[in-house]
Amino acid sequence: MIIIPGSASKDLGIKVAKMLNVELVPIEHKIFPDGESYIRFTNDLKNNDAVIIQSCSPPQDKNLIELFLMLDNAKDLGAKSITAIVPYLAYSRQDKRFMPFEAISIKTIAKLIESIGIDEIITFDIHSLEILKNFKIKAMNFSAMSLLGKYFLNLGLKDPLVIAPDKGAQRHAEAIAKILNSEYTFLEKHRNRVSGEVITFHKNLNVKNKDVIIIDDIISTGSTIANASKIAKNEGAKDIYVGCTHPLLIGDARKKLKDSGVKKIVGTDCIINETSEVSVAPIIVEYLRKKL
Amino acid sequence: MIIIPGSASKDLGIKVAKMLNVELVPIEHKIFPDGESYIRFTNDLKNNDAVIIQSCSPPQDKNLIELFLMLDNAKDLGAKSITAIVPYLAYSRQDKRFMPFEAISIKTIAKLIESIGIDEIITFDIHSLEILKNFKIKAMNFSAMSLLGKYFLNLGLKDPLVIAPDKGAQRHAEAIAKILNSEYTFLEKHRNRVSGEVITFHKNLNVKNKDVIIIDDIISTGSTIANASKIAKNEGAKDIYVGCTHPLLIGDARKKLKDSGVKKIVGTDCIINETSEVSVAPIIVEYLRKKL
Repeated sequence: MIIIPGSASKDLGIKVAKMLNVELVPIEHKIFPDGESYIRFTNDLKNNDAVIIQSCSPPQDKNLIELFLMLDNAKDLGAKSITAIVPYLAYSRQDKRFMPFEAISIKTIAKLIESIGIDEIITFDIHSLEILKNFKIKAMNFSAMSLLGKYFLNLGLKDPLVIAPDKGAQRHAEAIAKILNSEYTFLEKHRNRVSGEVITFHKNLNVKNKDVIIIDDIISTGSTIANASKIAKNEGAKDIYVGCTHPLLIGDARKKLKDSGVKKIVGTDCIINETSEVSVAPIIVEYLRKKL
Repeated sequence: MIIIPGSASKDLGIKVAKMLNVELVPIEHKIFPDGESYIRFTNDLKNNDAVIIQSCSPPQDKNLIELFLMLDNAKDLGAKSITAIVPYLAYSRQDKRFMPFEAISIKTIAKLIESIGIDEIITFDIHSLEILKNFKIKAMNFSAMSLLGKYFLNLGLKDPLVIAPDKGAQRHAEAIAKILNSEYTFLEKHRNRVSGEVITFHKNLNVKNKDVIIIDDIISTGSTIANASKIAKNEGAKDIYVGCTHPLLIGDARKKLKDSGVKKIVGTDCIINETSEVSVAPIIVEYLRKKL
């Protein structure tokens, strides 16, 4: 087995290879003056099981094209099998035709990845599990919640309340609460279709003097989480922590969250930035070890 | 037949639809705050012949993903046939494995486009005609040189010399010279593999007091053309014009060309900028008209 990390998941790939004690094949990657990506593997992988790790975090299109180039290069060079590990699968939120004649972007991305002729794809905390049905190849979703749960357990908070900022994130809050042996709840969220404004509320939130952990799969502009944080603060919550798998944190999301009373944001290395304190490497390693 | 122009070829698509007098279906296109593209067709195209026009000019990766989304959306919506017109096909210069284990990028791009299930692809003045062999579907290369030739003919230059800045561009210079009923020649170009420095020369360039037209398929950083221009100027050339299909003009290319003595750069709308004075619409129209 050979691990080949793309430029968006370099450190994660190195970690996985080290933990598994298998060969790492770094890539040579550059951007030409005109903006095109260039990819070269630094060693052969003919007749080997190739594991390509490349997140499609922003800039999504650049990282996607790089993923396509890597997967197809592995195919072209005669890899025995190809596993694509895409910690953050971009375009997952455009998974339906919300308006007539819209592109169902994730369906196209799935089709393109599959067309290369790889064997399986693995992603983390995908926006909707239904998306996996777009793949005819083996497609798996792993959750980083067990690792985020362990992180919060180590903080030693006394009887925290785990909050999902909307119903969709309830299963994630439940997973964290189970590890912490604590309670969880979820907020109701209503989005005004015209103005786009989001109204979040909870009929009976009991957080007075409690630490709060807000859990979601992805933090994009941070508005949803900031609203949840303000509600908890208004109800007298003590410290507010935020945990998520995909810390996109677009624009002024960090400031928005801080201003809303959030003490700390903890993300994973599915998307790399200063919040990525939790590595999903152990979960990848656990799966790949079975194939050795 | 329905013409659907992507965001990189909007005006070209409008022109083609108008000249053919067929339906135009504009797209709704936006970039989400996180950087993902969104595509919606503003009308149905079920059971229609769809012609999607989208150049993959810089930013190439964004325009490529948009192309994929559009083609697959047309497929998903039940278009009877799909013609992809990609005036500038990105990644065409990475068409071989120059170093071991390199990605052959254009091979991957071709595979991805084809996997969507379209019927034919058309591009303009592709870097090498060999690239078309990567497609199993009907893949055609059209040349913009006839239109560039007409442009220069209209300038009424007296007995100009057409120069190809290297042997690869010779066929383009020949096409232009034929229309102008003038002479053409090509420069020898040597690239130092280590330093990357390009040395251009000509043993017997007779341009004294002559207008010169330098012709290439693509102008990238402009170094090749600037060298050719300097050589012509040194030999006493009068005015120097530059014509190309794909005016990438990266970084300070415009300044480099101006400093080398170039009076005017003329490009086509395969890549949109202030030099794109020649439209390839008539060539597209000529082909599509046969299918009506």
